[in-house]
Amino acid sequence: MYTVSEYLFEQLHKLGVKHIFGVPGDYNLTFLDDILKHNDLEWVGNCNELNAAYAADGYARINGISALVTTYGVGELSAINGIAGSYAENVPVVEITGTPSTNVIKEKLCVHHSLGDGDFNHFSNMFKEVTVAQTFLTQENAVEEINRVLVECLKEKRPVHINLPMDVCNKPVICNQIVGNEIEDLVKEKIKSNKEILAEFVKDAKLKIENSKQPVILVDFQVDRYCSRGSLYNLAQKTGFPVASLSMGKGVFPEKDPQFIGIYSGALSSDYVRKRVDEADCIISLGIKLTDLNTGGFSQGFSDSQIIEINPHSSRIKDKQYNAIFIKDVIDELTLIINHRNSNQLNIKSNISQYHLSEEKYIPKSNKKLTQKRFWQRIYEFLKEKDIVIADQGTPFFGSSRIPLPKDSIYINQPLWGSIGYTLPALLGSQLADINRRNILIIGDGSFQLTAQELSTMLKQNIKPIIFVINNNGYTIERLIHGRNECYNDINMWQYNKLPYALTKEKNFNSYKIENEEELEVVLNNINKNEECLNFIEVIMDQNDLPKALEESEKWLKGEK
Amino acid sequence: MYTVSEYLFEQLHKLGVKHIFGVPGDYNLTFLDDILKHNDLEWVGNCNELNAAYAADGYARINGISALVTTYGVGELSAINGIAGSYAENVPVVEITGTPSTNVIKEKLCVHHSLGDGDFNHFSNMFKEVTVAQTFLTQENAVEEINRVLVECLKEKRPVHINLPMDVCNKPVICNQIVGNEIEDLVKEKIKSNKEILAEFVKDAKLKIENSKQPVILVDFQVDRYCSRGSLYNLAQKTGFPVASLSMGKGVFPEKDPQFIGIYSGALSSDYVRKRVDEADCIISLGIKLTDLNTGGFSQGFSDSQIIEINPHSSRIKDKQYNAIFIKDVIDELTLIINHRNSNQLNIKSNISQYHLSEEKYIPKSNKKLTQKRFWQRIYEFLKEKDIVIADQGTPFFGSSRIPLPKDSIYINQPLWGSIGYTLPALLGSQLADINRRNILIIGDGSFQLTAQELSTMLKQNIKPIIFVINNNGYTIERLIHGRNECYNDINMWQYNKLPYALTKEKNFNSYKIENEEELEVVLNNINKNEECLNFIEVIMDQNDLPKALEESEKWLKGEK
Repeated sequence: MYTVSEYLFEQLHKLGVKHIFGVPGDYNLTFLDDILKHNDLEWVGNCNELNAAYAADGYARINGISALVTTYGVGELSAINGIAGSYAENVPVVEITGTPSTNVIKEKLCVHHSLGDGDFNHFSNMFKEVTVAQTFLTQENAVEEINRVLVECLKEKRPVHINLPMDVCNKPVICNQIVGNEIEDLVKEKIKSNKEILAEFVKDAKLKIENSKQPVILVDFQVDRYCSRGSLYNLAQKTGFPVASLSMGKGVFPEKDPQFIGIYSGALSSDYVRKRVDEADCIISLGIKLTDLNTGGFSQGFSDSQIIEINPHSSRIKDKQYNAIFIKDVIDELTLIINHRNSNQLNIKSNISQYHLSEEKYIPKSNKKLTQKRFWQRIYEFLKEKDIVIADQGTPFFGSSRIPLPKDSIYINQPLWGSIGYTLPALLGSQLADINRRNILIIGDGSFQLTAQELSTMLKQNIKPIIFVINNNGYTIERLIHGRNECYNDINMWQYNKLPYALTKEKNFNSYKIENEEELEVVLNNINKNEECLNFIEVIMDQNDLPKALEESEKWLKGEK
Repeated sequence: MYTVSEYLFEQLHKLGVKHIFGVPGDYNLTFLDDILKHNDLEWVGNCNELNAAYAADGYARINGISALVTTYGVGELSAINGIAGSYAENVPVVEITGTPSTNVIKEKLCVHHSLGDGDFNHFSNMFKEVTVAQTFLTQENAVEEINRVLVECLKEKRPVHINLPMDVCNKPVICNQIVGNEIEDLVKEKIKSNKEILAEFVKDAKLKIENSKQPVILVDFQVDRYCSRGSLYNLAQKTGFPVASLSMGKGVFPEKDPQFIGIYSGALSSDYVRKRVDEADCIISLGIKLTDLNTGGFSQGFSDSQIIEINPHSSRIKDKQYNAIFIKDVIDELTLIINHRNSNQLNIKSNISQYHLSEEKYIPKSNKKLTQKRFWQRIYEFLKEKDIVIADQGTPFFGSSRIPLPKDSIYINQPLWGSIGYTLPALLGSQLADINRRNILIIGDGSFQLTAQELSTMLKQNIKPIIFVINNNGYTIERLIHGRNECYNDINMWQYNKLPYALTKEKNFNSYKIENEEELEVVLNNINKNEECLNFIEVIMDQNDLPKALEESEKWLKGEK
């Protein structure tokens, strides 16, 4: 028979979790033993809890779900910004807090890691704001509650919060609560579409689609969250419709596919993409979220009447709402019944002009200092199929947004929550989630400083990502917005290339500092020859050099749209 | 006329704030200009917001109040663990959040750094759990609200939360709200004792004290928070009573004073101190907080009937409560009326035996590996008057707890909240708050990794503290509690002494790695000769070597008390 914590970890394992992130503490030590004892789970100790939460977020984006363990109060509150990011961007993360004994709570004792007022609900209250389900485990409720919150986590693709008291974890669960259904079946049951409503929606949608002359499919990140990338591809193939993507959904549909017309970002889109979307008479929108950053400050030019809005758990056509139908089922049903249309009826144009790529072949010039423009051109050529590309907020987000990604690659960014420093620990998670994909992170120096120590965990885990730190002397994106030469946009100048040497005793990395095109070429060639260790590259750039997409965003970023 | 943000910063300045911590973000950039423009305020940009909150906490412990600026959502939530620590340990910190425009909030727009659901109250709700006052500034309420929350912050010695929307900060305040009273007067007014109640209390207390045969004064950290260190000293001098301290209040009363009998920690106290307190017929308790960590797991042996309980805002004798009387006034009034007693009536014994000090003179032995015992003996000799000694949780807290501090020194620790990693950024704050005091931090390697990058900010600010990192191969205190050899108590081994070189381009530090007594001697002599730069010392110790106070705490830490 399982103990409460054994049962929790076994259910996580069944849902696909293989690594658990976190930081030990005296309220969770005993149940960390259960992770070590589990044959298929690995404990990944992080340098701090915020980094653990970011790593769990990156892991869940690739793996479909993740978990982290923190201690009470100090630990869980350090993690809460990461959990809020997972909430905002629909990432299913299970936060497990090791909690003082039920007796301590009952007696309202003034123990360490509490506020000292005998009230042990403060932090759970805080987590209610940024999680979709919460529980406080007891021996009696453990099975039911663990299953409830995990199912909710996977239905909503959002974090959940579990309080596991240190005296409860080792108690056996009540066996008559263990239902026959496996946890995967409980999840499937929860996201099963209502057949009648689904049929009605598909009939209504078909009518609207077939009456349209210029339909377009507009996709976003939720397609990936709900594991519908394959379904989307089938829908596009079957219908022949052009596909545009919002920037958070970059890579969800292959950017080099002839049906892909480009990234839609409101008034900041290329003319053709903007018109093709704004003037479409039918926009099949798949899991889209219109935010300030992906619409050039809400400059989208279409209205509700043009849209068939397919959301994760419901859909809508004009004023008619269809509940209890799930995005993957909807896409699959539409694929079955929508007829193919020839591309010559659909005004599909090559999308290459919207990318910020030069037409001439990239030939590195000796002694030419690296610029944003040339750097991104070279990165574009360096990328290969199945890469995971991770871009932090700031110049890397804007630079990467305008190079097309290779087939089957995955793009990780965080433009809605936008917590700088997120990507370095997220890379730890995404690389561990799929050790066979090449992970490439591009992060600015300002962002890097927030979470830099997590490089240590990557070296400890002996993973082999490629990390570019753009050293452009501070917060360049903020200099653009306000205070170009003000000291608050400066940071202390680190010697970034020396950092890996301080963060480990092994020599399982290469560290470089480069500032011209020739040096970049040498580094990339070295990497291509030998991918057997972590590569860390400090790239010097001018502090006022901006990727073109960021230049174009200047006005709305300054609120002058 | 002031703008809203100018008014806020001017009020903070009047209350004694000279440095403002934080991280820039696009919702706060415009009002960071007002900090730069202010002649007497300095912006201290931190590497991340948690570190900023810790630095602000350390600063407020020395300076009496502090402030930090973060951006909305991502920034404030990263800081919230630090703010919770300030709440738990009564540290007055003003957290200022740069908030989206009122228009964005009114229209419920899906903007970056929000959860994307149009609800902008989530994070304010979270801050309600860990702050004593909150406000959302408008042009109309600014003067009144700024004064209200700042007064509350200083009355309760606890953090407050200010939302400052980016469109409000630059608007002029409404001038007819500006009352004649200066902010300092408003604070004084708020903590003015009720004269009648004070007189009644003092009369009742005098009776109990004069009837007692074995009175003792028991002090704690709140004496310092309410600026009553001088008053306490006068009370002790006047009465002649022995003084004991809880560990959070270490240093509040001079440990080498003949009236000081030692640190009281319940059953873990030395026999004499335990008996002298537990069996006292009158304990004058000054701002004490009995927590698990400072009472050896609630093993105190006295009861309410023995105590005259003097709290920050009220006092109590048995069942009689006296409200609206403030600790400093109470101490000062008692000092006036309690008669002196000769020490031979009071059973005051030298306290030196309770410290873990060797009686023989410390002579460094060549090639002898450093042990906890010998290290703390040597640190004891190294300390001098007015030092600020900062000890992180883990071995440094326990080791430092049992060496007496020199006169006028200040001890910073965080045993109630107990957030590991807190002390490194706290040192940044405490050193900036008083540049003339020598700051000495002792931190374990596990704790250091959580917030290590803040060393960079110290180097940027060109401050000159002394930092000992005890490299004992991971979480030693947790190994003691559970999982002595389990991997979750391991950390990646850094080359700590190389870190300062990576975190700056200047050479304004000395970095050392030592493992024997001779090397420690060389380092301390170097420091004594030249205090003109930051000194960073990695000290290698055995992972199972424990300070004696930690050994003695083993049972209750394991819950076997």
